[in-house]
Amino acid sequence: MRFQGADILSIDQFELADIAEIFSVAAEMEVYARREKVTRVLEGAVLGNLFLEPSTRSRVSFETAFYRLGGAVSNTIGSDCSSIVKGESLYDTSRVMGGYVDVLVVRHPEEGSVKKIAEATTTPVISSGDGAGEHPTQALLDLYTIMKEQGRSWDQLEGLSITMIGDLKHGRTVHSLTKLLSLFKNISFTFVSPEQLKMPPALVDQALMRGHKVTQTEDIASGIAHADVIYMTRIQEERFAHSEEAGQYRGCYSLNRGLYEKVCRPGAVVLHPLPRDSRPGSNEIDNDLNDHPALAIFRQAENGIPLRMALFAMVLDVVPKLGDRRW
Amino acid sequence: MRFQGADILSIDQFELADIAEIFSVAAEMEVYARREKVTRVLEGAVLGNLFLEPSTRSRVSFETAFYRLGGAVSNTIGSDCSSIVKGESLYDTSRVMGGYVDVLVVRHPEEGSVKKIAEATTTPVISSGDGAGEHPTQALLDLYTIMKEQGRSWDQLEGLSITMIGDLKHGRTVHSLTKLLSLFKNISFTFVSPEQLKMPPALVDQALMRGHKVTQTEDIASGIAHADVIYMTRIQEERFAHSEEAGQYRGCYSLNRGLYEKVCRPGAVVLHPLPRDSRPGSNEIDNDLNDHPALAIFRQAENGIPLRMALFAMVLDVVPKLGDRRW
Amino acid sequence: MRFQGADILSIDQFELADIAEIFSVAAEMEVYARREKVTRVLEGAVLGNLFLEPSTRSRVSFETAFYRLGGAVSNTIGSDCSSIVKGESLYDTSRVMGGYVDVLVVRHPEEGSVKKIAEATTTPVISSGDGAGEHPTQALLDLYTIMKEQGRSWDQLEGLSITMIGDLKHGRTVHSLTKLLSLFKNISFTFVSPEQLKMPPALVDQALMRGHKVTQTEDIASGIAHADVIYMTRIQEERFAHSEEAGQYRGCYSLNRGLYEKVCRPGAVVLHPLPRDSRPGSNEIDNDLNDHPALAIFRQAENGIPLRMALFAMVLDVVPKLGDRRW
Repeated sequence: MRFQGADILSIDQFELADIAEIFSVAAEMEVYARREKVTRVLEGAVLGNLFLEPSTRSRVSFETAFYRLGGAVSNTIGSDCSSIVKGESLYDTSRVMGGYVDVLVVRHPEEGSVKKIAEATTTPVISSGDGAGEHPTQALLDLYTIMKEQGRSWDQLEGLSITMIGDLKHGRTVHSLTKLLSLFKNISFTFVSPEQLKMPPALVDQALMRGHKVTQTEDIASGIAHADVIYMTRIQEERFAHSEEAGQYRGCYSLNRGLYEKVCRPGAVVLHPLPRDSRPGSNEIDNDLNDHPALAIFRQAENGIPLRMALFAMVLDVVPKLGDRRW
Repeated sequence: MRFQGADILSIDQFELADIAEIFSVAAEMEVYARREKVTRVLEGAVLGNLFLEPSTRSRVSFETAFYRLGGAVSNTIGSDCSSIVKGESLYDTSRVMGGYVDVLVVRHPEEGSVKKIAEATTTPVISSGDGAGEHPTQALLDLYTIMKEQGRSWDQLEGLSITMIGDLKHGRTVHSLTKLLSLFKNISFTFVSPEQLKMPPALVDQALMRGHKVTQTEDIASGIAHADVIYMTRIQEERFAHSEEAGQYRGCYSLNRGLYEKVCRPGAVVLHPLPRDSRPGSNEIDNDLNDHPALAIFRQAENGIPLRMALFAMVLDVVPKLGDRRW
Repeated sequence: MRFQGADILSIDQFELADIAEIFSVAAEMEVYARREKVTRVLEGAVLGNLFLEPSTRSRVSFETAFYRLGGAVSNTIGSDCSSIVKGESLYDTSRVMGGYVDVLVVRHPEEGSVKKIAEATTTPVISSGDGAGEHPTQALLDLYTIMKEQGRSWDQLEGLSITMIGDLKHGRTVHSLTKLLSLFKNISFTFVSPEQLKMPPALVDQALMRGHKVTQTEDIASGIAHADVIYMTRIQEERFAHSEEAGQYRGCYSLNRGLYEKVCRPGAVVLHPLPRDSRPGSNEIDNDLNDHPALAIFRQAENGIPLRMALFAMVLDVVPKLGDRRW
């Protein structure tokens, strides 16, 4: 099985065939994720959630995914990690925590740190993001959601039109998703952002070099007009040097039912990596879309469960046991 | 089964027949709560404990209840909840967390918030209290304890004499218990409090209108003289606008072995929703009663396990599976 | 079975026969600790981890140990414990938490507190350290590691030469290990520390009175020359009245590959209770030893799992069930 004992640190480590297999296993996981069936394939196994920066949503999603497979979870969150205060190196933390559990999920505030942790221990490490670095499972679940929502099979992704909106400079999810989609053919990317928060040129160039179409604009209405998928993002205040600087961009783009119904294609779906900022003045996606069938953001979050179950099952090599009656 | 898929938000949602059924299931749960028998009826299920205000005791009680049924628990406590800081609405938090788990237990510092969370998600929500609002499972376990301690069956509760003492204005447990007992017949309520911390008139009126007897006094000795049940409470400092104001009431009522043995009926039991304030100057129930058989406060806390197991089992509809050998 | 229902509070409660049995059960646990075999002997049981002072490493180790036996864990960490803020006594916390779970593991910042907690509840309590007090399971896993690393059987421990280095005044692990080893015969102790941080005289005297050899020195090179076991420790900054006072001892002893290879016996193993302080200026054990076979510190940490599994299984009396096919 692919990825047995492997670290999951970056979408750069995936080829199309890898992603196809992950998604195939994720699809198999859906019945267990919804608890229509119960499995104990990870009975006795322990997931170590090491969240040196809090991230409730990701943590709980990984937790539930591991529980649904019959495993147990030990959480260490933020300042809970007392040994680092006592001068312990990341290397030691990694080797000790790795020695206690079967797989580590790590979130760290500094870019590059999760890789260092993965290098120190032989225990598989799955990244849940490090600073401006990657959050590979988010990118995978985004793509998984696009395929499910659009009802497209693997070879039908060609020709997809996607519009990403907001803080495209700091948003690691849009970076990763752009990279992932660039593996396919003939994608139309539209990037809507303020001039100062544009998608990094390296990613734009990569997409262009692979033959995709890229449009960059500051105008949301024209930007979403032809999209199959609209991917809204939050202004990443915590990634700015000064919060006042972030403040000037809050509320720069807002999608509501009126705008959606006026300009969007029928069936265009709205995604968001969450959390969405619903404070007045931000309001990235208006609450008047909450019950609209196009709003896929909550289904997107739920897709994190089967997707992460698939990764756990592959890394810990229990996929073949799933059908086994004994479990 | 009653309450399948339901939210448990207020004791106002219960009729006597509901409570009878909850208590009947709780009684069935006792062997599993004491782990004389083991069950896995909730195998693969995940409880999301969302405690936006810490409450160790309630949280651990819900946790253990879920574990005893074979389930798993994901805790999010206080400031762990990072997404709220990022501007996420209660609606989104509810839909996302609800999408990850099978049942949510929610504690929130603001009255009305738990109801809002329950309305946003289709996942069942059990309230663990919101500010000055209700904490319905505490009220149920209080009543369950009264019946067990007094050895009264369901139809023998009529004629019970109960004395509630302390901060009856802010104490939500005494409000809820008064409401619950008002469903029965011919209860004698005695409310002992400083003038400024009296039981809210609406609750007194409700009890009177239903034909119960109500006595209000500032004197603890006469207040407890004829009681079957003495329910002490803590001055709810955190509910006062100024902590100095709360301070003047600390220690206003203290029950000790001397007072108990001098004035109480034989068999009168002493309850307290806990935590009791044992600091000098407060000392609501003196430590000299710790080993007295009348002190039921720790048995009361333990009753929370089978009671909460019953609610989980009913909400998730697994009561019929309990006797099933397969589990 | 020994220790059924017992508290584990101090190594003073152990005789050699007790330790022999604990280690024998720990050895039996190794296959489950490594998850080569899966057991559910503690299914339905709940461990209450009550860490009123954070200690990530110990907490996660106890958690994993309990999980590997099929149990579930409820954590209460530091300021999570809201009821203590509300004036609850240690007695009440103990009785309530004890009433919720099957076994408590307690860490407390004040010496003597864990004993008080154990006295209040009938639920078994295992100490995970209290201030300058004992951390008995660390001492046991240290001894267990020495035997495994040295390949010595129970009756071959006689004649062992061990050198302890660093803050021997405050380091509770070196105190406990000295006591434990003093139960054997003919041990050579070498204590290397600054004059002000010497091993307490009472422990030195106890070792001498039992016929062991004791050498005290400030010189690390001569101190480790003849050792079978080198036990490094951290300057316990948090135990000093003033952190500046601790600061003057930081970095006083540092072991690196050069020194090790120059003066140590072949096969001498290096232990450390962890966390090791790897900050420049401290660097108790240099990173150039990280891949050296003599560095046993990570294997030592991992030994905590089977050792703690053994204690849980003995205290909860499930050792005889381990071989039972039903589980």
